[in-house]
Amino acid sequence: MNIGGEASTVGWARWGATTNARTLPDAAAALLAQVLELTPPPPAVPLTEVTVPGCELDDAVLGALRQALGAGQVITADDVRARHASGMSTPDLLRQRHGQLRSAPQAVLRPADHAEVVSILDICSRFGVAVVPFGGGTSVVGGLTPSAARHVTIDLSRLDQVVAIDPVSRTATLQAGLRAPRAAELLAEQGFTLGHVPQSYEYATIGGFAATRSSGQASAGYGRFDDMVLALTVATPRGTVRAGRSPASAAGPDLRHLFLGSEGALGVITDVTVRIRPLPARSHYEGWRFASFADGLRAVRRLAQDGPRPTVLRLSDEVETMIGATRAGRSDGGCQLIAGYEGADVEPTVEAAAAVLAAHGGVPLGEEAGRQWARHRFDAPYLRDALLDVGAFAETLETAAFWSALPEVHERVRQAIIEALPDGALVLAHVSHVYETGASLYFTVICSPGPDPAERWRTAKAAASDAIAAAGATISHHHGVGADHRAWYAAEIGDVAVDLLRAVKHQLDPAGILNPGILVP
Amino acid sequence: MNIGGEASTVGWARWGATTNARTLPDAAAALLAQVLELTPPPPAVPLTEVTVPGCELDDAVLGALRQALGAGQVITADDVRARHASGMSTPDLLRQRHGQLRSAPQAVLRPADHAEVVSILDICSRFGVAVVPFGGGTSVVGGLTPSAARHVTIDLSRLDQVVAIDPVSRTATLQAGLRAPRAAELLAEQGFTLGHVPQSYEYATIGGFAATRSSGQASAGYGRFDDMVLALTVATPRGTVRAGRSPASAAGPDLRHLFLGSEGALGVITDVTVRIRPLPARSHYEGWRFASFADGLRAVRRLAQDGPRPTVLRLSDEVETMIGATRAGRSDGGCQLIAGYEGADVEPTVEAAAAVLAAHGGVPLGEEAGRQWARHRFDAPYLRDALLDVGAFAETLETAAFWSALPEVHERVRQAIIEALPDGALVLAHVSHVYETGASLYFTVICSPGPDPAERWRTAKAAASDAIAAAGATISHHHGVGADHRAWYAAEIGDVAVDLLRAVKHQLDPAGILNPGILVP
Repeated sequence: MNIGGEASTVGWARWGATTNARTLPDAAAALLAQVLELTPPPPAVPLTEVTVPGCELDDAVLGALRQALGAGQVITADDVRARHASGMSTPDLLRQRHGQLRSAPQAVLRPADHAEVVSILDICSRFGVAVVPFGGGTSVVGGLTPSAARHVTIDLSRLDQVVAIDPVSRTATLQAGLRAPRAAELLAEQGFTLGHVPQSYEYATIGGFAATRSSGQASAGYGRFDDMVLALTVATPRGTVRAGRSPASAAGPDLRHLFLGSEGALGVITDVTVRIRPLPARSHYEGWRFASFADGLRAVRRLAQDGPRPTVLRLSDEVETMIGATRAGRSDGGCQLIAGYEGADVEPTVEAAAAVLAAHGGVPLGEEAGRQWARHRFDAPYLRDALLDVGAFAETLETAAFWSALPEVHERVRQAIIEALPDGALVLAHVSHVYETGASLYFTVICSPGPDPAERWRTAKAAASDAIAAAGATISHHHGVGADHRAWYAAEIGDVAVDLLRAVKHQLDPAGILNPGILVP
Repeated sequence: MNIGGEASTVGWARWGATTNARTLPDAAAALLAQVLELTPPPPAVPLTEVTVPGCELDDAVLGALRQALGAGQVITADDVRARHASGMSTPDLLRQRHGQLRSAPQAVLRPADHAEVVSILDICSRFGVAVVPFGGGTSVVGGLTPSAARHVTIDLSRLDQVVAIDPVSRTATLQAGLRAPRAAELLAEQGFTLGHVPQSYEYATIGGFAATRSSGQASAGYGRFDDMVLALTVATPRGTVRAGRSPASAAGPDLRHLFLGSEGALGVITDVTVRIRPLPARSHYEGWRFASFADGLRAVRRLAQDGPRPTVLRLSDEVETMIGATRAGRSDGGCQLIAGYEGADVEPTVEAAAAVLAAHGGVPLGEEAGRQWARHRFDAPYLRDALLDVGAFAETLETAAFWSALPEVHERVRQAIIEALPDGALVLAHVSHVYETGASLYFTVICSPGPDPAERWRTAKAAASDAIAAAGATISHHHGVGADHRAWYAAEIGDVAVDLLRAVKHQLDPAGILNPGILVP
């Protein structure tokens, strides 16, 4: 259940449960105060004091939904609807802190299975009510804020079963609403792991991973989520699609890849069959320091292209390293790299990779630096809350580019953000997902909020997105398109593809009820 | 050029150039004569004696095409049109041997670049003339035989350039008409390889690899062709789509995977950007023997799932091993496995894999068995010609399934073919593409032709396809859908997906000119 129980759900006006809250280290707070002009904001408006627009669905719709799902699974309570009204971008959180809702779902529907999802789509198509699929609610790109005011949310939290595990083929069929930690627990009972650990891990769901082409911190070893997906079941207003049935196929276009990344705009993913792997017997994390980001990039590229491949590989640029060192009470300088290894027998890989890193100028920082990263691997969004608490604005954005373009993309995006925030901003970046041909770049921006932080950020984010597009990189490596990246996404795929996507949507969703305004321009 | 010069093109009424012909070893011929009733057929009708239906395009169409391409690139000569009239399935070859053509293109068009392909699609859309993209002409599933009698062929052989190589990112942009051996040559000059070596290697093109989701003999090490594709340019009647721009992306559905495997039905792929790798310094091939196919499968699965992963990994079943041994003048019994290793320093991998194979009951056969496989790696389609020459019918089909289903799929498909060919048939099978979750299965059937070999094969092939579908496997792992697999493909993806694919086609190709009858049911 993700209703009511705050500890198991993303928070109201903050990332996670208040019991998980992190406080900003004093040194970091002091550094920020030096660089930025910060005024602590008023406390967040509690959910109980937020005015939620009433449910305006007429009895015919509500009746049909209640008949399909059972009356108890069609929820119109204000607090539940408010909690399903948006995602977790910083503008989303600021709005919540101010007690505002852009819009709220008319009702939160809790189907029990695939057939009930199909029924919902049928009813909503007939009555012209938009639907927003909701997994962990962790979207940071406006993926849960449709353009239609009159919408209902399909909360998938009751679709939380492991349907099947095939230990010989190493596959598992998982329902879409299953949370990542629970999936890990259930797979571990059978000796397996998915290996998918994004920063949203504590709250995100299997269906959300698929719908947004999620990528986890251990992607160097386990691959992206879309690499893991063998098959998926999708409910659409036209009926059910089951895409994928074999380890590989040459039978036509790969329709899995039309629904992976479809963000609820083409259908509701109800289960996903994924590749699983044996639980690793050993894990080992260690830190390295490089004199410069360029040096670190060369080393990271060498490992990504020629191996041996760590399971986790991330390289912070100079600013992120500096902030991190401040947080940890150190001042190492240069750029920090974290290499993590998981498997049956990691030592030979650790040694071979160490030789490569050392040959490229890396200086070992030892296991403690690695353990510290692992201990704090889910901290960033909680630290964003702490930053918001002291009046700093913090947000992230990300892209991916080929190796030859990566240094330029890093520099151009940094510059674009800095120029767009003339009152001062800290721009931190890291590479955390590597491929043979390139890598991701993840930017964190901390700045003073100004009088209208949302508007200020819109400008800076647009400048960053323009820089990404101008450099030929992709508008998102793992956050997705949502509503926020729609314009850049359209430019990225081009007019013919935009029309194609519209035709695909129209075919599957003739009434246009599926997450309108998300993804499809 | 693939016109006239027989040595560089697939043959007339046979797979390849007659200069490459292989003869059947005496022992194999003797074995076949024991098992099957064979009568040597009359010699093939030479191309010069084949009646090719005249070009019926009117002057308006021909004029427009000549203006767009230059008169010399709109070819209506009978022999050229005949050579572009079909692919290389055994029924295709038998028809050619009998001097028959199912239909012939009205003209063979040879565009110089992407823009000229766009012009062709524009002209043909206006005049309602179907187009068939033609790369190497090696389709074995009827991919070059559209349902429209009035069609032209777009021969892509002039789009044969390496557009760009990025040695840092290890990517190359290759034009669609570039033949695999020439691509290898040009990449090798820069120290790189694609590592994509399917059995059609000598004749197939880069565009064909993409359009059919090809998989090469070294797929265990280099991956499938669709794994290698970073971006592609597609000409459609609606204009140009460029799909893919980064090593990975979460920006929406992955549209590359809509055009990969689209077999000319959704557009004409004009260039492909692929991941490349350094030329391997070393290669090593060796043979192993297992007591049974089941034993061999367990060993192969262990390597595919836990490594170390050879570059080439193939396991023949008992019958294929027996036939192969007869060919080589040996009689080893059991099942033969070939493991190939390519890389900078292969010895540690060879040793570690050998330990796994031995632990699973493998008996080493040494390097000579491996070298023999490598020497004959492209022989099979030439041997089919030799079999046809002595009056035996030989054809292949393939699928892929998860490991847990693989033994059953092997047995059910074998049985279905044997039952459908009551006069006797040799059914050989091997696994030649492995994944963590499963593998391909490739069947070769040799039987007496009977009075109507094409019809007899249609029945047997349908029985095999039904068995594949009933076992939940895919109708093709690397041959594609073409015209021959259309019905099973439709059943595999289901009604909602079929309608979706039709909508996609209609959006991109409103006049329905692109390879009609291929792929899209």
